[in-house]
Amino acid sequence: MSDDDFSRVELAHGAGGRAMTKFLKEIVFPCFQLNKIDGGIGLPSADDGATIPLGDRELVISTDSHTVTPLFFAGGDIGRLAAAGTINDVAMMGARPIVMTCALLIEEGFSITNLHRILRSLAATALEERVAVIAGDTKVMPRNTIDKLVICTTGVGIIEQGKAIVDSGIQPGDKIIITGSIGDHGIAILAERDGLTFGTELKSDTAPLWSTVKACLEVGGVHAMKDPTRGGVASALNELATKSGVSIWIEEEKLPIRREVQAASQMLGLDPLQVTCEGAAIIAVEREKADTVLDAIQKTRYGVNAKILGEAKEDRQGLVLMKTKVGGTRIIQQPWAEAIPRVC
Amino acid sequence: MSDDDFSRVELAHGAGGRAMTKFLKEIVFPCFQLNKIDGGIGLPSADDGATIPLGDRELVISTDSHTVTPLFFAGGDIGRLAAAGTINDVAMMGARPIVMTCALLIEEGFSITNLHRILRSLAATALEERVAVIAGDTKVMPRNTIDKLVICTTGVGIIEQGKAIVDSGIQPGDKIIITGSIGDHGIAILAERDGLTFGTELKSDTAPLWSTVKACLEVGGVHAMKDPTRGGVASALNELATKSGVSIWIEEEKLPIRREVQAASQMLGLDPLQVTCEGAAIIAVEREKADTVLDAIQKTRYGVNAKILGEAKEDRQGLVLMKTKVGGTRIIQQPWAEAIPRVC
Repeated sequence: MSDDDFSRVELAHGAGGRAMTKFLKEIVFPCFQLNKIDGGIGLPSADDGATIPLGDRELVISTDSHTVTPLFFAGGDIGRLAAAGTINDVAMMGARPIVMTCALLIEEGFSITNLHRILRSLAATALEERVAVIAGDTKVMPRNTIDKLVICTTGVGIIEQGKAIVDSGIQPGDKIIITGSIGDHGIAILAERDGLTFGTELKSDTAPLWSTVKACLEVGGVHAMKDPTRGGVASALNELATKSGVSIWIEEEKLPIRREVQAASQMLGLDPLQVTCEGAAIIAVEREKADTVLDAIQKTRYGVNAKILGEAKEDRQGLVLMKTKVGGTRIIQQPWAEAIPRVC
Repeated sequence: MSDDDFSRVELAHGAGGRAMTKFLKEIVFPCFQLNKIDGGIGLPSADDGATIPLGDRELVISTDSHTVTPLFFAGGDIGRLAAAGTINDVAMMGARPIVMTCALLIEEGFSITNLHRILRSLAATALEERVAVIAGDTKVMPRNTIDKLVICTTGVGIIEQGKAIVDSGIQPGDKIIITGSIGDHGIAILAERDGLTFGTELKSDTAPLWSTVKACLEVGGVHAMKDPTRGGVASALNELATKSGVSIWIEEEKLPIRREVQAASQMLGLDPLQVTCEGAAIIAVEREKADTVLDAIQKTRYGVNAKILGEAKEDRQGLVLMKTKVGGTRIIQQPWAEAIPRVC
């Protein structure tokens, strides 16, 4: 690390792309020597969650702060986002989420009516997957020391010992599935901020995905999972390719991108592949099981738009490549940062 | 609840006294129906943490956001505070803390040098009790949407099934011990803010207390524990008395209050009993074991100033009473709120 690179924290350092990876590896992680439990998954893996081995079971734990503006948006609110975000991180490790904690940071003067709406939404989202909210904390901060409301949730899930599904598990030949359409959340938030309308309804996809993940696990053959939040599909695929030591090839014509999201992205100069999703997962599945897993996903509430995007290959390790509609090949790079701040 | 009482969130709602209890019971808790795991301790108990029964063991989980200004103070910093606060909440349930997660909310432009100092301090404090920091999250918020830095930590500990020590466990006749001096943290923070000096060194007591708690548990006879953070000793004792259905009688002349804290409290018009401690615990112990437990506490690093404050009685349930130095009896009420905002 040089002082030139790092003297002040920048928005990019929390934005899910290469800047964040570099920041975590060079600044944050080295502070922690005791960073995992023997036999478990810890901080150095930078996976969706960590694990605690406990006899014949393993606990999965994941934590996330949620800061989004506006707090209410088409398709959700910060409460639904906080519950879904944490449930999904636990689920991406292959674990059944069982409990969640919820720490509130509230600006003095915040409306109780709105707080009520948000907490009920959080509770309802957790209830969809039978996740109990068992502990919490409430801090109220003086005006102008925090913008309205931040929610920090931590989720705990259970899995059989040694069965956690990690980002490094993709094998050459695996099919790459996405369980829902791309970029809906980030674009919906941006539209809300800018007062844009698109004729048809554009809304966030924020949703808890445990039931969808469970359907995949019941079929079997799942090698890796990741939810493409900050930094979007581009960031998630690059992380998976790098950690697994494979290349990932996707096909542009198979990308499930809504017409409104496509149009808005063009208008705003954004690449939908770099935009945050909050109700979709990328799932790598062994080739022979891919169609059966896809069927199972499509039968779940939040999996109806699932598609097989492409596959993993052995050569060109760490790269993500896209066959374009016009017949070329484009390298999908990990973005430097999420294009839109405060979306999750 | 009437709308007159609750339309806007106030500082008092997060400040650890009666206002917070009322806010949680009337506004927050009713939002969550699925609020505990069968056989475990959940949200309705409002204890230091919740539990997840898991075969012959029980997991204890506790979460806390930390917001303190200034970030560095005599005796600690927000990193040490975040680690100690969470370790202590888990320890107060009688569980050995094993892991912690750490979610950072950082204001854009924050100094990396200071972040480094804070994270190393957090890690060192966790390491004192061999607690691994295994997962985290980093969000950077635009300038003026958060004041510098907030840290949300969640801790997980392990205990034998059914052995969690809860606030409601005090029996009449139990002795009430405090493991350290009273009010140091809150007064040190306030002194730092106001640039006050007191001749001798006044510093925060922020410290992780698992080793101290472990020493007590090894002796046995521990019926309840609580760390007197927001709302101080007055708030903690009132909660314990109410939940246990006993009265608690303490003696003014036995209160371990440093001369500097006493002097500063008088000058600032504060009652040290209502001021946040971050390195002390209140422990209720069966009468016969009290002296042995006290000895064990005093041999631990953060227990040298431990004292027996008083005892629990059967009559006048829910009250906390103090025999004053001049021979009278004063009711120690639960404060409406912590007197000093942003101390933990």
